Amino acid sequence: MIRFGVIGYGYWGPNLVRNIAETKGAQVAMVSDLRPERLALVQRRYPYIDVTADCRELVSDPRVDVVVISTPVDTHFDLAMQALQAHKHVFLEKPITGTSEQALRLIEAAQARQLRIMVDHTFIYTGAVRKIKELVDKGTLGEVQYYDSVRVNLGLFQPDVNVIWDLAVHDLSIMDYVTGKRPVAVSATGFGHVQNRPENIAYITLFFAERLIGHVHVNWLSPVKLRTTLIGGAEKMIVYDDMEPTEKVKVYDRGISVTPDSESLYKVLVGYRMGDMWAPQLDGSEGLGVEMQHYVRCLETGEKPITDAQAGLRVVRILEAATESMKNRGQLVELPESKEVSA
Amino acid sequence: MIRFGVIGYGYWGPNLVRNIAETKGAQVAMVSDLRPERLALVQRRYPYIDVTADCRELVSDPRVDVVVISTPVDTHFDLAMQALQAHKHVFLEKPITGTSEQALRLIEAAQARQLRIMVDHTFIYTGAVRKIKELVDKGTLGEVQYYDSVRVNLGLFQPDVNVIWDLAVHDLSIMDYVTGKRPVAVSATGFGHVQNRPENIAYITLFFAERLIGHVHVNWLSPVKLRTTLIGGAEKMIVYDDMEPTEKVKVYDRGISVTPDSESLYKVLVGYRMGDMWAPQLDGSEGLGVEMQHYVRCLETGEKPITDAQAGLRVVRILEAATESMKNRGQLVELPESKEVSA
Amino acid sequence: MIRFGVIGYGYWGPNLVRNIAETKGAQVAMVSDLRPERLALVQRRYPYIDVTADCRELVSDPRVDVVVISTPVDTHFDLAMQALQAHKHVFLEKPITGTSEQALRLIEAAQARQLRIMVDHTFIYTGAVRKIKELVDKGTLGEVQYYDSVRVNLGLFQPDVNVIWDLAVHDLSIMDYVTGKRPVAVSATGFGHVQNRPENIAYITLFFAERLIGHVHVNWLSPVKLRTTLIGGAEKMIVYDDMEPTEKVKVYDRGISVTPDSESLYKVLVGYRMGDMWAPQLDGSEGLGVEMQHYVRCLETGEKPITDAQAGLRVVRILEAATESMKNRGQLVELPESKEVSA
Amino acid sequence: MIRFGVIGYGYWGPNLVRNIAETKGAQVAMVSDLRPERLALVQRRYPYIDVTADCRELVSDPRVDVVVISTPVDTHFDLAMQALQAHKHVFLEKPITGTSEQALRLIEAAQARQLRIMVDHTFIYTGAVRKIKELVDKGTLGEVQYYDSVRVNLGLFQPDVNVIWDLAVHDLSIMDYVTGKRPVAVSATGFGHVQNRPENIAYITLFFAERLIGHVHVNWLSPVKLRTTLIGGAEKMIVYDDMEPTEKVKVYDRGISVTPDSESLYKVLVGYRMGDMWAPQLDGSEGLGVEMQHYVRCLETGEKPITDAQAGLRVVRILEAATESMKNRGQLVELPESKEVSA
Repeated sequence: MIRFGVIGYGYWGPNLVRNIAETKGAQVAMVSDLRPERLALVQRRYPYIDVTADCRELVSDPRVDVVVISTPVDTHFDLAMQALQAHKHVFLEKPITGTSEQALRLIEAAQARQLRIMVDHTFIYTGAVRKIKELVDKGTLGEVQYYDSVRVNLGLFQPDVNVIWDLAVHDLSIMDYVTGKRPVAVSATGFGHVQNRPENIAYITLFFAERLIGHVHVNWLSPVKLRTTLIGGAEKMIVYDDMEPTEKVKVYDRGISVTPDSESLYKVLVGYRMGDMWAPQLDGSEGLGVEMQHYVRCLETGEKPITDAQAGLRVVRILEAATESMKNRGQLVELPESKEVSA
Repeated sequence: MIRFGVIGYGYWGPNLVRNIAETKGAQVAMVSDLRPERLALVQRRYPYIDVTADCRELVSDPRVDVVVISTPVDTHFDLAMQALQAHKHVFLEKPITGTSEQALRLIEAAQARQLRIMVDHTFIYTGAVRKIKELVDKGTLGEVQYYDSVRVNLGLFQPDVNVIWDLAVHDLSIMDYVTGKRPVAVSATGFGHVQNRPENIAYITLFFAERLIGHVHVNWLSPVKLRTTLIGGAEKMIVYDDMEPTEKVKVYDRGISVTPDSESLYKVLVGYRMGDMWAPQLDGSEGLGVEMQHYVRCLETGEKPITDAQAGLRVVRILEAATESMKNRGQLVELPESKEVSA
Repeated sequence: MIRFGVIGYGYWGPNLVRNIAETKGAQVAMVSDLRPERLALVQRRYPYIDVTADCRELVSDPRVDVVVISTPVDTHFDLAMQALQAHKHVFLEKPITGTSEQALRLIEAAQARQLRIMVDHTFIYTGAVRKIKELVDKGTLGEVQYYDSVRVNLGLFQPDVNVIWDLAVHDLSIMDYVTGKRPVAVSATGFGHVQNRPENIAYITLFFAERLIGHVHVNWLSPVKLRTTLIGGAEKMIVYDDMEPTEKVKVYDRGISVTPDSESLYKVLVGYRMGDMWAPQLDGSEGLGVEMQHYVRCLETGEKPITDAQAGLRVVRILEAATESMKNRGQLVELPESKEVSA
Repeated sequence: MIRFGVIGYGYWGPNLVRNIAETKGAQVAMVSDLRPERLALVQRRYPYIDVTADCRELVSDPRVDVVVISTPVDTHFDLAMQALQAHKHVFLEKPITGTSEQALRLIEAAQARQLRIMVDHTFIYTGAVRKIKELVDKGTLGEVQYYDSVRVNLGLFQPDVNVIWDLAVHDLSIMDYVTGKRPVAVSATGFGHVQNRPENIAYITLFFAERLIGHVHVNWLSPVKLRTTLIGGAEKMIVYDDMEPTEKVKVYDRGISVTPDSESLYKVLVGYRMGDMWAPQLDGSEGLGVEMQHYVRCLETGEKPITDAQAGLRVVRILEAATESMKNRGQLVELPESKEVSA
């Protein structure tokens, strides 16, 4: 039985606690939060879980094997480092840390102690994203040519981070997982409509060494909630609409065919293929539940989690580059070599 | 009775001819096209219209008052200049010309001869866009904060122009009309998936002197046809979905409220307003028909058309800047002073 | 070249004339209408077509091979009979006649003179319905178990017929074509909200000798336009939504499996299959154009039209039975033997 | 603090327990279920709740004030009667009982002991239905002219009751609440596709003394889940689509206008009004939570619950009549006087 201690019972914490409690082989031993009313809520729902206002108590408690950190991002590094130093595994809310430097240091600390960091890139574990990954890996889509996502809503304006750090994390982690490709440069633009607050609308273009382009549109000031991703492949194309209740993934047998133009050596003819659409039945399990099962299995077997700290680091590096580019109204920012850090 | 001569009976020409034929005060006197089978089709449908393979004949025919140019964009300037020199009014398919320099020369030529150039920015005349314009002008939306549009489909790849020159023209002309604001700089990115062909996917960010940001996403390689525009105002927000059969414009009473934070001089609190949605009944008339009536009235009364050559020029300047920025992967390109040319 | 004379240039007449004019092997020789302004419109659009206010002139004109009747249903029989007596083929707007007795007499008259009657059950010729028919005939759906359609809108209240005679005709003709089965009895209910006017909302249940049930809901008083048909098959199920711009037909690999219950001789276990959805690419041609080509080919080759007078008669018999049942608040009305009339 | 004992922890029981546990003034004292694995699940989730396999123990436990019955409908009467005899209030899953006779006897038993029966017509307490009720009561809709609902999905075939008893209960209870009108007669049709099993598809027409018609379509064999209700009023019309994530209720300013025809004393002219659509912001609270708060308040204050046993009885009487009519293929079945039973 792996015992979890959860720091932070705010917006997402209740989902974490509920899913851990329902995961075989896992149990929630303790929850900490600074707000007494949140702890009271935990006790009402789960009278058997210990609660504390002091997260250090939780981190050092011998009954805790894994520390789950569900707090504002600027606290991630310190809490995670304390947990690692106390020889606990760490499960971090996204994004992994507020800087790539911090992520690198966590990776080193975990490596030195043989501990497993997991980042909560939760969409990776949904039926929809797993199906898309399967279709890409099997070659059904052919070469992936573009990845375009829109994630907008009337958001919770976060006071300290811009909208990219809040919403684009999801898209960047899905793109990273699904395409398996690493961007080499970023151009981003955006705007902040509230004085003294960071940008609430942003557009990020991602350039790759491959014949692939990525784009993410995030916005906290949209009247409607949209979650639409277009993935263009040379053979098939996908529309992934997470707002659809069941048919979230639609695969289109559509595209172009390029043939040499008989009249000119340097020209090509572009034809079109408008074929059928197919919506595979998806596993409807809650992503967070699948994720917890995966993490527990990784802890039991030593397997590397899909969304490990390296995945978290790759995303943070893009967030940093996009933020910098956005400050300079679209100026290209190159990304560091994307190979795995050797830590 | 104003008599029209139409050059080009390809994809859009039949719509032009049909709408002119149904417009009071207008008639189609002649159609020209290089392809005999297209002329045969005209004759089958309208046995009373004269046809010719030689557009010079049409331009010089005394029975023609207005020359309508519905041909590839690289022919626009020469044909329009010939028509102006023959003292004809000119109706041009969008975009007005292939360069802003050409548009300026047409404006001068028309001005010198007191002739009226009209550009076919056809969406301006639809019930949906006219309703949005009305809501902005009445102040219902409050200050416009962003304009975000998506126009993607499995396109007709145009051999000589990139996707911006084909699709973004629509969005840029609507944005120009609806907001009444002129962008000061552009950052654009894109990609061409077919060798020796221009970009087929593009993203354009528009910066303004005002607290406004614009963005246009165009793509010829999308499996589905999307036509969705979000317009954020300080008071109300609009979702304009042109794929909806009737409820194309939805107005949301949603937004944020910003109040000073009592605990800190430099901070603000951001609250949310989630109110009702309202979809006004729209005039369902075909935009092109309304446009033709407007143009005929302008010719009769001397009134300036809404989508005159200046509107065409403003759009072309953005197309040029976006194309340049796209070549340099998002590098900012400033737009020339946007005040009316004095020609 | 087969020459058509069209009686009635009201709501649907313009579509008929336009499609005949675009059909190879066909031409419109004459149009008649009682209203001078409608004839003026014909002349404006088609200066080469003869017009007349007197339909008898059209019927007797030797330049007319086929008489198209696009007038109120209570005039169908007289006009069609005159045309047949003048040795013309007849193309009738739906429903074929106001009574089944009249339809029978037209069938006899046509048979006696070797003339071809065609009824304008236009949906039969759309890409969507032809694809559904193909899927049923190939056995993809398995045994058809139910046919359920909804056709509602804020209608044009017709003064003399109830909503069944206006809207349900479409559904009954599609059901007749797609299932190939003939109902044996009908129960219908409905209501008229306007005094001295027939029912504007109606529900029709159709019983069959087979394990099949049909239902049609029609309503002139709906705020929105709905055109949704569910077709349940033992192997696959279809949702046919004619309001969708392109994906009108969706095929679901869903259903139930019935197995004997090991615990009880008389019981069964019902299991579920939730599989993929598939939307075949459809031929987007206008149904009426396909229909006209089919009719011209039938006239040329002697082939029997799909929607011949027998198909029209079958539908009218159901309309009569449904109207009678509706008067008696759902009382079952049996249909006459559905075998082909021997006339 | 009102203490609940819940009998049955199957499909719906967990929602009941969770909502009672979150309701102020309420607590779950005990849960009973015949299946040990369900009781184990309760204990895992709520270690502080007592469990028992013997519901009689629960019914007689002095720590239980209210017995919640979430078991198959054929057990409702016996369990509820036992609870009433043990002087407990009773909360019953829908439908209240398997016969109207049983419902009447429960009403008498409760009345005699001053106990409160509540039926779980849960949709009544959702933001959508409460908003519709408000619009009807305020007169916004004008006279309600029709109520048409569709509730279909690939269902859980229930072995012992037909689809009406499973799904139509929801629609009939919403219609009862929203219109405040009582039907006087019913005509229903349906079909059972599985041998030895009751009907899995059904259509119910409801006749009223007023100028109102109702219709309910329920189906366990639909490939897709539809939850669409059209409510036609003389002034406004509503589309209530429960599958929409947020805009569940749309109010249309559409309808007809009837004016005398100047040419004929006996005729009328019907005109149309196509106005705006409006989607009010709805309270998104879970209906069951609102319901529990309402019930607790009723128990505390002696107020009569909205969905009391009388409401349950009215629905069961329609279910009985519809089932009888369905057996006779649509034959009209009159409903007993709908005035409140005097028990």
